[in-house]
Amino acid sequence: MAKILTLGEIMLRLSTDIGVRLNETQQLDCHYGGGEANVAISLANFGHQVSFASKVPDNSLGQAAVKHLRRNGVMSDFVQLGGARLGTYYMEAGIGERAASVTYDRAGSSFAEAAEFPWSYEKLFSGIELFHISGITAALSVQWCQWTVELVKAAKKFGVLVSFDINYRGKLWSQAAAGKALKEILPYVDYCSAGDLDARYLLGVPEDRMNSGFVYYYQQMQQQFPNIKCFYSTKRIVYSASSNQLVETLWLENTYYESEVHKINPIVDRVGGGDAFAAGILHGLISDFDGQRTVEFATAASALKHTVHGDCNQFSEIEIEQFLTAGSGRIVR
Amino acid sequence: MAKILTLGEIMLRLSTDIGVRLNETQQLDCHYGGGEANVAISLANFGHQVSFASKVPDNSLGQAAVKHLRRNGVMSDFVQLGGARLGTYYMEAGIGERAASVTYDRAGSSFAEAAEFPWSYEKLFSGIELFHISGITAALSVQWCQWTVELVKAAKKFGVLVSFDINYRGKLWSQAAAGKALKEILPYVDYCSAGDLDARYLLGVPEDRMNSGFVYYYQQMQQQFPNIKCFYSTKRIVYSASSNQLVETLWLENTYYESEVHKINPIVDRVGGGDAFAAGILHGLISDFDGQRTVEFATAASALKHTVHGDCNQFSEIEIEQFLTAGSGRIVR
Amino acid sequence: MAKILTLGEIMLRLSTDIGVRLNETQQLDCHYGGGEANVAISLANFGHQVSFASKVPDNSLGQAAVKHLRRNGVMSDFVQLGGARLGTYYMEAGIGERAASVTYDRAGSSFAEAAEFPWSYEKLFSGIELFHISGITAALSVQWCQWTVELVKAAKKFGVLVSFDINYRGKLWSQAAAGKALKEILPYVDYCSAGDLDARYLLGVPEDRMNSGFVYYYQQMQQQFPNIKCFYSTKRIVYSASSNQLVETLWLENTYYESEVHKINPIVDRVGGGDAFAAGILHGLISDFDGQRTVEFATAASALKHTVHGDCNQFSEIEIEQFLTAGSGRIVR
Amino acid sequence: MAKILTLGEIMLRLSTDIGVRLNETQQLDCHYGGGEANVAISLANFGHQVSFASKVPDNSLGQAAVKHLRRNGVMSDFVQLGGARLGTYYMEAGIGERAASVTYDRAGSSFAEAAEFPWSYEKLFSGIELFHISGITAALSVQWCQWTVELVKAAKKFGVLVSFDINYRGKLWSQAAAGKALKEILPYVDYCSAGDLDARYLLGVPEDRMNSGFVYYYQQMQQQFPNIKCFYSTKRIVYSASSNQLVETLWLENTYYESEVHKINPIVDRVGGGDAFAAGILHGLISDFDGQRTVEFATAASALKHTVHGDCNQFSEIEIEQFLTAGSGRIVR
Amino acid sequence: MAKILTLGEIMLRLSTDIGVRLNETQQLDCHYGGGEANVAISLANFGHQVSFASKVPDNSLGQAAVKHLRRNGVMSDFVQLGGARLGTYYMEAGIGERAASVTYDRAGSSFAEAAEFPWSYEKLFSGIELFHISGITAALSVQWCQWTVELVKAAKKFGVLVSFDINYRGKLWSQAAAGKALKEILPYVDYCSAGDLDARYLLGVPEDRMNSGFVYYYQQMQQQFPNIKCFYSTKRIVYSASSNQLVETLWLENTYYESEVHKINPIVDRVGGGDAFAAGILHGLISDFDGQRTVEFATAASALKHTVHGDCNQFSEIEIEQFLTAGSGRIVR
Amino acid sequence: MAKILTLGEIMLRLSTDIGVRLNETQQLDCHYGGGEANVAISLANFGHQVSFASKVPDNSLGQAAVKHLRRNGVMSDFVQLGGARLGTYYMEAGIGERAASVTYDRAGSSFAEAAEFPWSYEKLFSGIELFHISGITAALSVQWCQWTVELVKAAKKFGVLVSFDINYRGKLWSQAAAGKALKEILPYVDYCSAGDLDARYLLGVPEDRMNSGFVYYYQQMQQQFPNIKCFYSTKRIVYSASSNQLVETLWLENTYYESEVHKINPIVDRVGGGDAFAAGILHGLISDFDGQRTVEFATAASALKHTVHGDCNQFSEIEIEQFLTAGSGRIVR
Repeated sequence: MAKILTLGEIMLRLSTDIGVRLNETQQLDCHYGGGEANVAISLANFGHQVSFASKVPDNSLGQAAVKHLRRNGVMSDFVQLGGARLGTYYMEAGIGERAASVTYDRAGSSFAEAAEFPWSYEKLFSGIELFHISGITAALSVQWCQWTVELVKAAKKFGVLVSFDINYRGKLWSQAAAGKALKEILPYVDYCSAGDLDARYLLGVPEDRMNSGFVYYYQQMQQQFPNIKCFYSTKRIVYSASSNQLVETLWLENTYYESEVHKINPIVDRVGGGDAFAAGILHGLISDFDGQRTVEFATAASALKHTVHGDCNQFSEIEIEQFLTAGSGRIVR
Repeated sequence: MAKILTLGEIMLRLSTDIGVRLNETQQLDCHYGGGEANVAISLANFGHQVSFASKVPDNSLGQAAVKHLRRNGVMSDFVQLGGARLGTYYMEAGIGERAASVTYDRAGSSFAEAAEFPWSYEKLFSGIELFHISGITAALSVQWCQWTVELVKAAKKFGVLVSFDINYRGKLWSQAAAGKALKEILPYVDYCSAGDLDARYLLGVPEDRMNSGFVYYYQQMQQQFPNIKCFYSTKRIVYSASSNQLVETLWLENTYYESEVHKINPIVDRVGGGDAFAAGILHGLISDFDGQRTVEFATAASALKHTVHGDCNQFSEIEIEQFLTAGSGRIVR
Repeated sequence: MAKILTLGEIMLRLSTDIGVRLNETQQLDCHYGGGEANVAISLANFGHQVSFASKVPDNSLGQAAVKHLRRNGVMSDFVQLGGARLGTYYMEAGIGERAASVTYDRAGSSFAEAAEFPWSYEKLFSGIELFHISGITAALSVQWCQWTVELVKAAKKFGVLVSFDINYRGKLWSQAAAGKALKEILPYVDYCSAGDLDARYLLGVPEDRMNSGFVYYYQQMQQQFPNIKCFYSTKRIVYSASSNQLVETLWLENTYYESEVHKINPIVDRVGGGDAFAAGILHGLISDFDGQRTVEFATAASALKHTVHGDCNQFSEIEIEQFLTAGSGRIVR
Repeated sequence: MAKILTLGEIMLRLSTDIGVRLNETQQLDCHYGGGEANVAISLANFGHQVSFASKVPDNSLGQAAVKHLRRNGVMSDFVQLGGARLGTYYMEAGIGERAASVTYDRAGSSFAEAAEFPWSYEKLFSGIELFHISGITAALSVQWCQWTVELVKAAKKFGVLVSFDINYRGKLWSQAAAGKALKEILPYVDYCSAGDLDARYLLGVPEDRMNSGFVYYYQQMQQQFPNIKCFYSTKRIVYSASSNQLVETLWLENTYYESEVHKINPIVDRVGGGDAFAAGILHGLISDFDGQRTVEFATAASALKHTVHGDCNQFSEIEIEQFLTAGSGRIVR
Repeated sequence: MAKILTLGEIMLRLSTDIGVRLNETQQLDCHYGGGEANVAISLANFGHQVSFASKVPDNSLGQAAVKHLRRNGVMSDFVQLGGARLGTYYMEAGIGERAASVTYDRAGSSFAEAAEFPWSYEKLFSGIELFHISGITAALSVQWCQWTVELVKAAKKFGVLVSFDINYRGKLWSQAAAGKALKEILPYVDYCSAGDLDARYLLGVPEDRMNSGFVYYYQQMQQQFPNIKCFYSTKRIVYSASSNQLVETLWLENTYYESEVHKINPIVDRVGGGDAFAAGILHGLISDFDGQRTVEFATAASALKHTVHGDCNQFSEIEIEQFLTAGSGRIVR
Repeated sequence: MAKILTLGEIMLRLSTDIGVRLNETQQLDCHYGGGEANVAISLANFGHQVSFASKVPDNSLGQAAVKHLRRNGVMSDFVQLGGARLGTYYMEAGIGERAASVTYDRAGSSFAEAAEFPWSYEKLFSGIELFHISGITAALSVQWCQWTVELVKAAKKFGVLVSFDINYRGKLWSQAAAGKALKEILPYVDYCSAGDLDARYLLGVPEDRMNSGFVYYYQQMQQQFPNIKCFYSTKRIVYSASSNQLVETLWLENTYYESEVHKINPIVDRVGGGDAFAAGILHGLISDFDGQRTVEFATAASALKHTVHGDCNQFSEIEIEQFLTAGSGRIVR
């Protein structure tokens, strides 16, 4: 069991039932989530002592976000109350050939608009072994970009391992801006979620006709950032909004690992699948699983996430191990 | 049948089921409404040809608002698409002793933030007999306050009757600001929804121990604004969130009318009750009902509104007449 | 325990949720019922062996009606399959001041259009002690009017007690037609549900200023039909669609009985309240309860019916007795 | 943007949830639709000015049908109110190996029983560029068969393009009757939805062992009706109620076009898939898309229809174009 | 039509919606079922006169179980009321790679704890042609194991055919205990559901490398129990919780039959699939279908069961025959 | 803010929707609660640091109970996992004249059957200022009765204030057994929920014709147990299951306080109303409110509890204060 801190925005997701368009629906389902919050919950499920730092409005929606964290065993002492509103987005559920469709309404949120850094580093990192944050946080504002750099630096200063998920979102910032920020952040990072597209478009790794696979890109990124102990990323084939194939990859100590193939069909809810994977990797690393076991565990966690509604993975370590053992779809009774 | 224009903001209301708190709910019901939109729909139900002018974002939520108007027979040609977001609010349903509780998330809406006036007066008022707008619109921004004044002036210039509902909301502007605006607006108004509290706190009518009733305040307002042909207002006794008593009052041609008493219990949805009343009054005036019939019709419309979910009244003129005839609660079969 | 037969139409009721208009609803609740079917189910709940005779289409809706009967312990051997359709009606739920509103779609049903009488009297009445039928059946067609007369005659011939519920529906036949039929039917009836309005408008009992109460009308009907052993009827005060006061009355062996007052608030579903009352009276008569116990039992049965969705009463004799003992609304735990 | 008229019956569909049988369900979902109404809505979504002519009862269900049209941007001025009832059908949702099952209750509807033709041709066709009607309308009664012939003749007289969807339903009329009617109708038709089965069984095209494909049948039909500018039809492979493969075909100016293959899995709601395709073809023709783009657009429209509940397609031209570009099932965020 | 008796426990199943974990759900669906009860209902659907013998508590849940039986046409005269509680289990619905997960809460049930045998054999078997019971009943207690042996003996004594479904559940008893009981039971059995695993692990049939198929195991079991007229069993391939392939096998008069392949995707509810198959086999045997028709009918019944919620098959003989004729997934309209 | 411990059983409540009988329902709502757990949650809402000690099974239902506590801010470190099952009860919702009806299925629960005391007193009471427990715990078994006595003694030994709610349940133990236990427990109690019925039937206070009020009984109990600092109890008038009048009473330092009258209509969910009151009293005492403010606060908390579904009060101190200020049922917007 490790003491872990994650920090980021937590949002309200309002989603339609399958087969109903957002402009026709009379009802929306409420879920709360965000990359770092989802990772926090997964790690709490795996038995770690996890805190999540964020800022939410001091109203019912902010309370609901806090209750969601607590219910899932995440400590909310560093969730500051205040500011204007909770970031929100609407998701029209996809199915078959039709992809899910997102309508963002996240501008002006309490978190994104925070004018002062809400915590002291001393308190945040006291006793913490691992700190996780993502590129989404850095993308929210110039202020948050700067704070993200400061946070990873401070974490290192306090002897905390740093986990970073690039999680590039084209709607939030340009590739150039992201690349610039990453150059400042990654030198302080220990574990990094980054794939071939990140390597090419954000980190400037040149395409190489002879070396198109993940290994090449991991090697190139490793050269740029020798401080990073592991990279990991997803190879997803999207057959349709209901059917995906999932293979996850891990680069650890200059060795490449790839999980077994998971056929996810039907997909209940894809949101948070990457966060479940990241948390699985972090749990494997913390628990000294070997590379293969780490990537299998993390992939299974991600596959299971696809079978439940909501942004966060809701499976314990034991359940994931049983899933890996039992194979697909058999009832135990 | 008259040609009518109303103009204002239309918002998304997300509400909980009865007995569920907003910070606990997993699901929200969607309704679309706003004072002027609700009045438009009521008047369309009564057989008039009604247009609604507004601005909504060019996304699924904006489309949903337009579809809501169309479904209810209101023309949406003057609904401009664009801007950042649809004004939103969350309503935790009240019941019994516990009042409904509103969490606003309306700042920064496409309508409120409109930088340029979206229409030409010529097109807006072409062929229009009656124009309805409310104080909420004037309260949204300095810009909208100025445009509201210009709109009522333009309406008069085009020979259009002007209906104005003060609809004071303390969360949007101060009494002083509202009072100042009303002094500019009311000289151009023909029909005005305004009650004793509006008279005292916004229009500066002095309290008079000997004359505490509605008649006194109507007389005083009539003196201030001799141009106004009728005032109307609600006398509501709130026993609980589920049980109200409703009496509506009308001041028309220096005569005071008061409706029969309606006991509303249980209340299904109170939102839009005042708009249903306003639309009922306007329909009576347009249709040359006498004062008593006008106020009874309008009160019945408002009472019926309380029995349905959603912001808008969904009853036709015939249904309201039958309701007035049949009395309370008997099945016809 | 008695062997009982009831005969009539069973229909599909499609009803809205509270607060939603039929022209707005996206969903309808399904219930199956009809006067004689509801009486059959109540009597089966009270431990009698009850058959229901009817005709329904040989499709899923007909099957659903049969399944509804069986689930509630009523034998469906005399439910003939065939014909065009199941009689249907839509009910917009009422609440508060707004009454429920019914949209009929019952014309052309398998039952109403039956061209030949579907059973032999010998089989129908074999072993039967009590036969119950209502004026609705007689009103469905000229054919059914004639068959109703023949049925009550045949019942008497086979030594079966006859129970008849006038249940006048102005939408199905005129007062004159109903009155004419009743003159042919009532001479064969033992137990009759008939009230003051039936007496005046269908049976020609003259109004008498000095004798406006139920006793007078019961006496007058008793004089016309000395064969009838008991009359019973409801005194309902409708405060609103959600709040009624219920007092039930019984005329038995020239004595008048009146139940205690039941305040029904809120009403969950009023449909079938009269049938629950009728079944309660019949159970009291069969079980040799005295007059007062009979009317109290029947009224309690009717009051409880108002607290459940669906057309039929779902309470056993023991539950009704407990309800009479416990008084209103206390949890036993 | 074209001015378009479609004419036909609109019905109420009451459907079960997946996995629940009609004879077990306690709840039904309401949808409104019909071939010509669905085409009207699709075309309104694509930006055309569309009127729908029909007849519905003057009750809540008739109003609901009108509100459905209006919500979706279709003008309802030619929807006459009156007659006995709204045609209805019950659909038990299919899934996997089990097909959906339909229980019709459409006889005696206001539309089918219309005794007099409800409109004047002058008003109906005033300003109209395209008129769409289907064989279902012709099949409803001898009267409607005759009126359908008159309608297509009148349309031509008024210079209106005529679109006709054969839409043969064996439950409504025989192949002989349909064939006879088609011989009278098709000489006035410009665009015709007709496939190989229609050609063989209704239009008497002989089977030819050497020419079993769509091209052969289109050629043969083209010979019979040289006036028809285009034929189109669906090649659907039904793997199960949940999984279909869809290829659409078009015969335009003696050239055969075939869409890409769409794998529809899972199917949310298949009803109206053909109407969505027809409307897509008409939009392509009106918009002067070339043959291939027309058939791809129409097939995409039909594929998307399968992903939403309800009879009508709910996607705009832009959404369909984006769908064609994006490929299957990817979230944009 | 045969007179049939089945005997066993009926339980309450409380299940989650798809995509919701049991520890997160706010709502559970209620189904009632059990192996022998499910077989009873299937056989009643096929037109037989079926009684079910059991014991349930004399409370609302016991009543609900009885109502479920009655609704589906099963006679409940032998359902004794009494004892402590209804056996219950919670099912977290599975989907895709994630299997359903069962939480049992069945200990201490009225049935399992029955201290005295609740019926007389004379009454139970009076007029009965076929008796069906399963190994689950024998596994519930030492008492029930003994009673099961006595029941099959008594059945034979009364000239009743005996059907037995081994239905081994490792959570209820050991392989050794089951094997011992089977040795006592099977000599009195006519029809037996038993597959290769039962043969190997319970009946001690040795593995044989050269004979790994069903035929070998059926032959071996037939040698052990020459009294048994037929064996049958399922060959299920579990691709995932949502997708299975089903082939059913039958050993009848020393001949092996195998059904066509059914691809079940998606699976709505797998519970009771085996009972539907067993009932189909019994119906074929009773109805003198030949072996192939019997196994095809039974497999189709089982396949259809997978498409509906709830433990019991809800399809009639006609529907199953139509399904076999129509093939997969086509709408008839 | 105080550090508080409560200890008791937490159960699963499965309840029907209003108007649906338990033996008819297809769906049940899940709530988790128990007297001491509910008090814990209320006190956590009021800002205290609260732990709850209990034992639940190590399965999904046990996890759900823990998640419920955590969500509401209660620490679950003392919730032991293990044992057979979670105590369960079914509640048929009451309405109007019909009371709710409870079907218990709580026997054999992990908590009730605990064979060894699961905690050390040192750890339980470390740093605790207030300990709350109820008579329900003492009633569960002879073992728990003994442990309850030991717990209150140990609490006193560790200098912890002891709060005790008699909460007599006739279904769990006799008045004699309860009285005997209370005589051992109450000498160690500081705050005690006990009313006139408890005084008479459990503590042997004689009836006194001249002194029938609460003051008399409080005085008599105070004499018996001079160690108790305050008594409190509810005066509830049950008009119906939907309408109650609530007055709460408090005896503090020999002074009697009575709250204002709350008319609760309609009641959403009465379960836990007494626990909300108890927690309100405890909060007032901890916070040094005076007697009147304490009883008003506690009564308001209880009144608000009646307006939400679920066993626990969900209102913060601020919300309760606002409720007391605002009066009944007004929207703030």
